[in-house]
Amino acid sequence: MAITYRQAGVDIEEANTLIDRIKPLAMATKTQHVLEGIGGFAGLCSLPGGMAEPTLVSGTDGVGTKLKVAFATGRHDTIGQDLVAMCINDIITTGATPLFFLDYFGTGHLSADVGAAVVKGIADGCQLSECALLGGETAELPGMYADGEYDLAGFAVGVVDKAKILGADRVQVGDVLIGIGSTGIHSNGYSLARRVLEGEMKLEMDAQLDGLEGTLGDVLLTPTRIYVKAVKKLQAALGDSLHALCHNTGGGLVENLPRVLPEGVDALLDGLQPWPEIFRVIRRGGPVELDEMRRTFNLGVGMVALVGAEEADEAIKALSAAGEKAWRLGSIVEGNEGEPAAIAYHNDPEESPS
Amino acid sequence: MAITYRQAGVDIEEANTLIDRIKPLAMATKTQHVLEGIGGFAGLCSLPGGMAEPTLVSGTDGVGTKLKVAFATGRHDTIGQDLVAMCINDIITTGATPLFFLDYFGTGHLSADVGAAVVKGIADGCQLSECALLGGETAELPGMYADGEYDLAGFAVGVVDKAKILGADRVQVGDVLIGIGSTGIHSNGYSLARRVLEGEMKLEMDAQLDGLEGTLGDVLLTPTRIYVKAVKKLQAALGDSLHALCHNTGGGLVENLPRVLPEGVDALLDGLQPWPEIFRVIRRGGPVELDEMRRTFNLGVGMVALVGAEEADEAIKALSAAGEKAWRLGSIVEGNEGEPAAIAYHNDPEESPS
Repeated sequence: MAITYRQAGVDIEEANTLIDRIKPLAMATKTQHVLEGIGGFAGLCSLPGGMAEPTLVSGTDGVGTKLKVAFATGRHDTIGQDLVAMCINDIITTGATPLFFLDYFGTGHLSADVGAAVVKGIADGCQLSECALLGGETAELPGMYADGEYDLAGFAVGVVDKAKILGADRVQVGDVLIGIGSTGIHSNGYSLARRVLEGEMKLEMDAQLDGLEGTLGDVLLTPTRIYVKAVKKLQAALGDSLHALCHNTGGGLVENLPRVLPEGVDALLDGLQPWPEIFRVIRRGGPVELDEMRRTFNLGVGMVALVGAEEADEAIKALSAAGEKAWRLGSIVEGNEGEPAAIAYHNDPEESPS
Repeated sequence: MAITYRQAGVDIEEANTLIDRIKPLAMATKTQHVLEGIGGFAGLCSLPGGMAEPTLVSGTDGVGTKLKVAFATGRHDTIGQDLVAMCINDIITTGATPLFFLDYFGTGHLSADVGAAVVKGIADGCQLSECALLGGETAELPGMYADGEYDLAGFAVGVVDKAKILGADRVQVGDVLIGIGSTGIHSNGYSLARRVLEGEMKLEMDAQLDGLEGTLGDVLLTPTRIYVKAVKKLQAALGDSLHALCHNTGGGLVENLPRVLPEGVDALLDGLQPWPEIFRVIRRGGPVELDEMRRTFNLGVGMVALVGAEEADEAIKALSAAGEKAWRLGSIVEGNEGEPAAIAYHNDPEESPS
């Protein structure tokens, strides 16, 4: 008997079913910049006008083993927002406006239901980011993934006028660091979190823990916050007094803050707040050392805005009005000339946790 | 004893080793458009000047189970070129000039050696595409992939002046289809190819077959051809007489040609050439039906250029001068008004293979 592609494990019909379900989801994210009906092999997008030197800003990311929580709970409709958030929150740190997003979904055996749920989350994330889901690839790779598992990669493009690019070269001694709250673990450190929660503490995803709202699965699946709208408000309120933005991902503030600090300055974190409870559970449950916690998790800080000292109150006001938790996290102080920035923790309420 | 991220399966040091090895590879792909030293969280790229309405063109793809051939042979330094090719060949069909590329590399346990080999292939592909490797994500996902395995996703962005976008709306009856040779299976249909070659024919990757140069592994790993330079020559030679370009990927000419054909025309393929030997081996070895072969593999045609009839010779000359195998594959004929394009095979030398 003749052999077909389908027998080799690739189900074109299931893929086409999925594509039909993705189309309206992607359509709902369409912006004025998306060009339709042309370019059958690629997505096309025009640029916003009014920029002297439009500069493209691009980033790619995945969601790490937060995927394993989606697999364990069978809930696939929010992990897509995480994917968008991880990419988009990176590109907006430059001051860029998001334009479009593309996703890669790789799996061993395609399920249109799971795929459509994942893409729904991606489309939700794109809407929160005010950017278009311009394209994607659904790859069925027989034998590459365990049953029911998949990997995701995301890719975001935005644009910023060259003269408005934010970053280290705008940051100066005296600047204030504004912390912007995270919604939980976001999408970094899940291998350690699961090792502690599932491995050491033997918790199931439906466990209810003191101080946590909902089940452990609910807490672990809480989508990564998307800061696009908040940052737009902040830009509008502060103008040139917004100097830099730091997306606090893997590595924590220790590794991420230096990416927006010039040589010769340090960051003094003297406005640290108590961690969200899930981080305390993990720290106790491991136990995990304080330094390891700081280098692995966001510990409640999703983004940091570096602003001129006189605009700090205005920044907090604008972020609060946009629905964010925002507070004075610290400031930029003199460091050693010619040396990379150091991050100093001062009066951290978690130094001696209760 | 306290638990660390490393014990949870994430080896930051190995990741940092890999990043150090990737840096010079990415640096070698730098173009005049890449902005350096700013934007610590994302890649930045300026736009070429001189376009009235610059339009961004973007695509994402993977390399499918060609990965399994890389795993089986332990050769990881060319699969990256496949990744770039799959994305870049898609975006240049619009007439776009590639600007930059980003990659996602997901694995269960990171090996800097394997990662560096993969990224070397990606950087090679970027150089062949005259585009910058602007960023990437290396994700270590303990428990997600089998030992020694990984998945890859690629993202490409190019730019085209809106008035110059190629595609179906430029194609008309009388146009000539110029076939541009593939270098083998490229990166589509490997699940079927491996099912036949390994499953039915019980061949090992070091098998030597009549009519095939090198081992089976050599043939299967031959990198997907990148058509950037050839297409640039074609654009220069033909100007507005280049109407459309079709990247012949999964689905074959049957499914890909219609993406660049307007309603009411058909494509008559009367200049088909004998297939490269590997496709004949697969067809016999399955056996695989002719229709299934046509819907799964490129069968020797990597790209198709649709050009004005009077420029067909000029197109073949320009492509040949650029080092491509190019020939008259067929033409555009009248179809049924208002109906989608049909693809007609005429005098296919593989209809009754010897």
